[in-house]
Amino acid sequence: MTKPAAIALPNLVHLGDASNFLEEIHAVLGPMPIFEGFAAAEISTLCDYMDCYAAATGASVLNEGDEGDFLLLVLTGSVQVIKHDPESGEKLVSEVGPGAFLGEMSLLDGLPRFASCIATSPTDVAVLHRDDLIGIVAGHPDIGTKVLLLLLQLLTRRLRSATTRMLPTLESNLV
Amino acid sequence: MTKPAAIALPNLVHLGDASNFLEEIHAVLGPMPIFEGFAAAEISTLCDYMDCYAAATGASVLNEGDEGDFLLLVLTGSVQVIKHDPESGEKLVSEVGPGAFLGEMSLLDGLPRFASCIATSPTDVAVLHRDDLIGIVAGHPDIGTKVLLLLLQLLTRRLRSATTRMLPTLESNLV
Repeated sequence: MTKPAAIALPNLVHLGDASNFLEEIHAVLGPMPIFEGFAAAEISTLCDYMDCYAAATGASVLNEGDEGDFLLLVLTGSVQVIKHDPESGEKLVSEVGPGAFLGEMSLLDGLPRFASCIATSPTDVAVLHRDDLIGIVAGHPDIGTKVLLLLLQLLTRRLRSATTRMLPTLESNLV
Repeated sequence: MTKPAAIALPNLVHLGDASNFLEEIHAVLGPMPIFEGFAAAEISTLCDYMDCYAAATGASVLNEGDEGDFLLLVLTGSVQVIKHDPESGEKLVSEVGPGAFLGEMSLLDGLPRFASCIATSPTDVAVLHRDDLIGIVAGHPDIGTKVLLLLLQLLTRRLRSATTRMLPTLESNLV
């Protein structure tokens, strides 16, 4: 099994194997509201596919527009998600903490990073590459399915929120 | 294997087993840009878990606020997605055609329907219930994974779009 390359996050400090952070990872991957959650042994297997990194306050964790095929799971700390709006400059899209996923959109669709992510306090993250997600799905289908369902639920939550917030920008009022 | 209950869509005409619409379903479930697409045999298996329905022009396919644990795959026709904005009334969120998924958010998170969907031309849809998605994942993990990855990619595309469109509504400009 290939571990994630340590060169992916030049602004961060490589903390090594995610197995050393089992407790933190277990704490943030809580039960899923609709589907079956993760058992401790499954989290342990998941950790075999991830490495952990530390970001200092102010460190850029992801840069809008960069290529990237990995996601981050925030374990500790806090991160601002900032996107450049051509009309009005930098916008704070959200501020997230432990349990948040970052960068999963580029992992899933292969397009450049949608927003920049800046650590606003000392922040530890677990990194999962696309190839490792595919490896989990192939080697441990039950765990892979749960990861995919977890991502589906978090994207759904974000999509409900973003779509609600974009409603005022829609010009077309129906009769 | 339990087939979807025919009572779920009172405004629609039940067309029976999705296997009778294999060609249409194959046509709309194209290859996935990043991950492996569906083989013909996999689409055929998928059809065993779905039923098809027809909506006349003007029929309400989904109603905002309703409970619902199934998604629709649009095979033919066109559907307007309309959401009630408390401040400005009904807003047209999007208009979609063959290949679009509708209702997948409630399937995934169990919350009420986010928007209403009205057929704007004669529209055929394939219906997949949550229990049947779970059945596919359990009985055919390879196919289940592909369905989940397809849903992840479509949610990602929508989330990029909705978040970009909501940017002007964000008040916080960073320095």
